[in-house]
Amino acid sequence: MYRSHTCGELRIEHAGMETTLAGWVQYNRDFGAMTFIDLRDRFGITQLVFNTENDAALFQRAKELGREYVIQVKGKVAERYNKNKEIPTGDIEIIVSELTILNTSEIPPFTIEDNTDGGEELRMKYRYLDLRRKPLRNNILLRHRVMQETRRYLDTTGFLEIETPFLIKSTPEGARDFVVPSSMHPGEFYALPQSPQLFKQILMIGGYDRYFQIVRCFRDEDLRADRQPEFTQIDCEMSFNDQQDVIDVFTGMAKHIFKEVRGIDLGDIPTMSYDDAMSKYGSDKPDIRFGMEIQYLDSLLQNAEFAPFKDALASKGNVAGIVAAGCAAYTRKQLDAFTDFVKEAHRGLSGLIWVKWAADGTITSSVNKFFDEAATKTWLEHCGAVAGDLLLIGAGATNKIQKSLGDLRLKIAEELGLRDKNKFAALWVIDFPMFEWNEDKKLWSFMHHPFTSPREEDLDKMESDQGNVKAYAYDFVINGSECGGGSIRIHDPKIQAKVFSALGLSDEEAKDKFGFLLEALKFGAPPHGGIAFGLDRLCAILSATDSIRDVMAFPKNNAGRDLMLDAPAPIADSQRKELGL
Amino acid sequence: MYRSHTCGELRIEHAGMETTLAGWVQYNRDFGAMTFIDLRDRFGITQLVFNTENDAALFQRAKELGREYVIQVKGKVAERYNKNKEIPTGDIEIIVSELTILNTSEIPPFTIEDNTDGGEELRMKYRYLDLRRKPLRNNILLRHRVMQETRRYLDTTGFLEIETPFLIKSTPEGARDFVVPSSMHPGEFYALPQSPQLFKQILMIGGYDRYFQIVRCFRDEDLRADRQPEFTQIDCEMSFNDQQDVIDVFTGMAKHIFKEVRGIDLGDIPTMSYDDAMSKYGSDKPDIRFGMEIQYLDSLLQNAEFAPFKDALASKGNVAGIVAAGCAAYTRKQLDAFTDFVKEAHRGLSGLIWVKWAADGTITSSVNKFFDEAATKTWLEHCGAVAGDLLLIGAGATNKIQKSLGDLRLKIAEELGLRDKNKFAALWVIDFPMFEWNEDKKLWSFMHHPFTSPREEDLDKMESDQGNVKAYAYDFVINGSECGGGSIRIHDPKIQAKVFSALGLSDEEAKDKFGFLLEALKFGAPPHGGIAFGLDRLCAILSATDSIRDVMAFPKNNAGRDLMLDAPAPIADSQRKELGL
Repeated sequence: MYRSHTCGELRIEHAGMETTLAGWVQYNRDFGAMTFIDLRDRFGITQLVFNTENDAALFQRAKELGREYVIQVKGKVAERYNKNKEIPTGDIEIIVSELTILNTSEIPPFTIEDNTDGGEELRMKYRYLDLRRKPLRNNILLRHRVMQETRRYLDTTGFLEIETPFLIKSTPEGARDFVVPSSMHPGEFYALPQSPQLFKQILMIGGYDRYFQIVRCFRDEDLRADRQPEFTQIDCEMSFNDQQDVIDVFTGMAKHIFKEVRGIDLGDIPTMSYDDAMSKYGSDKPDIRFGMEIQYLDSLLQNAEFAPFKDALASKGNVAGIVAAGCAAYTRKQLDAFTDFVKEAHRGLSGLIWVKWAADGTITSSVNKFFDEAATKTWLEHCGAVAGDLLLIGAGATNKIQKSLGDLRLKIAEELGLRDKNKFAALWVIDFPMFEWNEDKKLWSFMHHPFTSPREEDLDKMESDQGNVKAYAYDFVINGSECGGGSIRIHDPKIQAKVFSALGLSDEEAKDKFGFLLEALKFGAPPHGGIAFGLDRLCAILSATDSIRDVMAFPKNNAGRDLMLDAPAPIADSQRKELGL
Repeated sequence: MYRSHTCGELRIEHAGMETTLAGWVQYNRDFGAMTFIDLRDRFGITQLVFNTENDAALFQRAKELGREYVIQVKGKVAERYNKNKEIPTGDIEIIVSELTILNTSEIPPFTIEDNTDGGEELRMKYRYLDLRRKPLRNNILLRHRVMQETRRYLDTTGFLEIETPFLIKSTPEGARDFVVPSSMHPGEFYALPQSPQLFKQILMIGGYDRYFQIVRCFRDEDLRADRQPEFTQIDCEMSFNDQQDVIDVFTGMAKHIFKEVRGIDLGDIPTMSYDDAMSKYGSDKPDIRFGMEIQYLDSLLQNAEFAPFKDALASKGNVAGIVAAGCAAYTRKQLDAFTDFVKEAHRGLSGLIWVKWAADGTITSSVNKFFDEAATKTWLEHCGAVAGDLLLIGAGATNKIQKSLGDLRLKIAEELGLRDKNKFAALWVIDFPMFEWNEDKKLWSFMHHPFTSPREEDLDKMESDQGNVKAYAYDFVINGSECGGGSIRIHDPKIQAKVFSALGLSDEEAKDKFGFLLEALKFGAPPHGGIAFGLDRLCAILSATDSIRDVMAFPKNNAGRDLMLDAPAPIADSQRKELGL
């Protein structure tokens, strides 16, 4: 061993002790007759002192140590004169008597500090240097703890960690598979799994009862912001359980992780139906750290002659609003920005109406030519506003209203500082629809997964009223992010056949697409269901960072490229030939 | 929940209790007025009783339950009349009052029993059924525990679990890479890692101090017996340590795993030099559960006129033997088989001489025309034989002698029952040569890894005497299997340059092959080293099974094919086109 202690270990009670430390030179501060060096390792920083009085030659050598040099020092622990309360070792320093340079370093292309001067591309190319920075290191340390605590919880609750293969068969559903040519079987390909979904069901059919895996998954698709071609799931499945059992077990897991890793009690985690979430928050992953729910004015406006309202209600749409608390004084410019926001094509409202209830009680609105103060006051009161608040109202088709007001709600909350990254509010969203209408293909398609179980009470709607069939499907949502999702699966081949028929799949097509699982269902499949959590997203939320790239040791950039390795890259012609490409 | 207890949980103290169980019908035994069903789940087997007297209709339904049906039963726990001492629940049975069929099953294509009638191919196609068999289930359960205990030990000793990427860059060394075409970058490829070697070194350079990962690795090569295209490593690396530190930490890990998983104390784990292992056991992975070491007769035979001995010694070869204890009575046929064995082309001895020391003291040999009894007796005594033993002698080049006698030693031990799979003997083999001579290419090539550190005392032989440069490389061997291997890595760019030069690589070629790691070494790399254990092999040894396929949930066959999925398989033309193939 090159050291007796780490750089984060020594305290005032070690004063007088001889110690050997090893690490990196973080700073080298020259004070004429003395040189102070901050020595850094994964565990912390310890101050070293070199003194010309003690040893002039050693002092001279110390002065010449550059940033990021790797050194080993022996010396005596001493109480510090100027204590540094910012770091756990701040009460002591090391009076160095021996110095060994273990390695030198070129000058790093960016500063290894909490706030670095390096751009993201440069830091990705020199990822090993970026990884030395404390914010990134803290995230990697947190991720380690999340993984250990996740497994500890699941092991304790009877889940078995079972590895599933990475070289599998391409499936025709969902996102595009990465494929892997086989040189033993030229012209044939494996595929990398988008998730171990079919394998975990197979394991339940194999009788393993409770399975988990923290596992890499792959998706070959154009990367939207903050997606990665490879990502990690906490993948779980259990047998002989209903939806509530799954929710109970994984509520326990989420609470355990937050408690052990961040010391945070998530409290009771509420359950909300998909319909409620869409209606109140305009989203199937509502951020419930704050209220500002969507309020429907439909009942008040049945006889309104104002064209936007009349049209919306006549075409079974809605008039609805959100209350921005304390925002009655927002300027025209701010309100125009909100209007532009909801008019963006993917939201599609035609405009936004505002009603201000000033702190002095005055009510003004953008529709005062059509509605008097008494009318708009009923709206304000209906929506739960008080003096000082701003009410923003939209009218239109339900899906546009919900999308627009849901997004606007988040935007305003962000501006008002209601989305504190170090506050956490989780919930389960349940009762998802089983099917969604695919307007392009003029077909019902599955919302979650073709093996998701519909609710028993909706089975008779499977062929006649697909839009109203609800599934035993559930999402774990925290701070407005979907962190996990799963479902109870179909274990009865007859119900599976009904689902395929509702999806317009013939027996033959179904067999072609999902052959081995359908075969397996015939041999005694138990009732089962499960869930998968996105580890990257979960760690990003726990780390209070926005990007999953900040919680991965070696992420790829938005073009799916690893800048340190320079991958992907062309391969040799001989290699292509061997693969029959 | 579909059950109040599992099928492995109920004991005599539960007698009288109402219970609900769910599981699979293992057996259904009809005794006229009674039917007994063995109900099985992952946790065990519980006997159910259906009685025509209690409930004739229920009894009738029970009689019709087929093997592998999934059922739920309610009933009362009762003490059994005929107790079954073989199973933990054998003192009780359930007097069933309610039966629900959760799922039916077709008749499985092979029996779900400890000794099944299914061939391996059939069992791999229906892997979910094979996985229900107890021997396989026990292996999967053991593997789960090995993984948990491995991580527990490493977490406790300061190792961080850090995930490294699977989509990396193809490296030109070693076995063939699997490659993955990128649709975002047509004509470019990722590669799947053969190991995270370079990443773990990068993590050390990044300051992470101690890293581990239980990680899938990939090798696209023709599969020798018991190899898989994807396999799992316990991959570890640590900083600021020397070889002994690594050995100490991972001796601790091995002992922890054996103790926690199998209740076995591995005892002190000896260290043996590569040269000693080759000399005494003819192998760099000696099985030391038994002795039978290779004994050298060279010193006794300096003046022998017998041509095979004379020629061997004249060409700097050896005359050496092994003592098969108690085998003096072996027949001519047995001895001929040994001779044929050592003459096989890859062993290459020209023959085998035997000397029998019969229990009555008589000494006979296959060379009695050339050597009298007094001479052969000195050989026997030199080799430590006693009356009753058989001495088998070969003469020839050292490498052939060691390979042949080493293999013969294992063969005889197998026949004598000295290789008990439930006894364990581990050791570390150290001081591996740094280089080996590649006769085809007329070049020195690296034995372990081009980043392995040579011993300091051998640095001056790097250019003149490569064959005698030893490396800080070590293997963990158990029961004659290499279970782990690693090395101290080079952290000094100057020594790295010397190694490349000894390998005949120019600076440019080195940069081309190992660019980003060489770059990283310039920025303050700490002294570091590590190890990787083969999880599949380790679990096979712990499970006392011969094949790693028996400890994997979803192995591929010897042609690299997944018979359940039918992968690899051709892909659609449209998919090829998207990938630019």
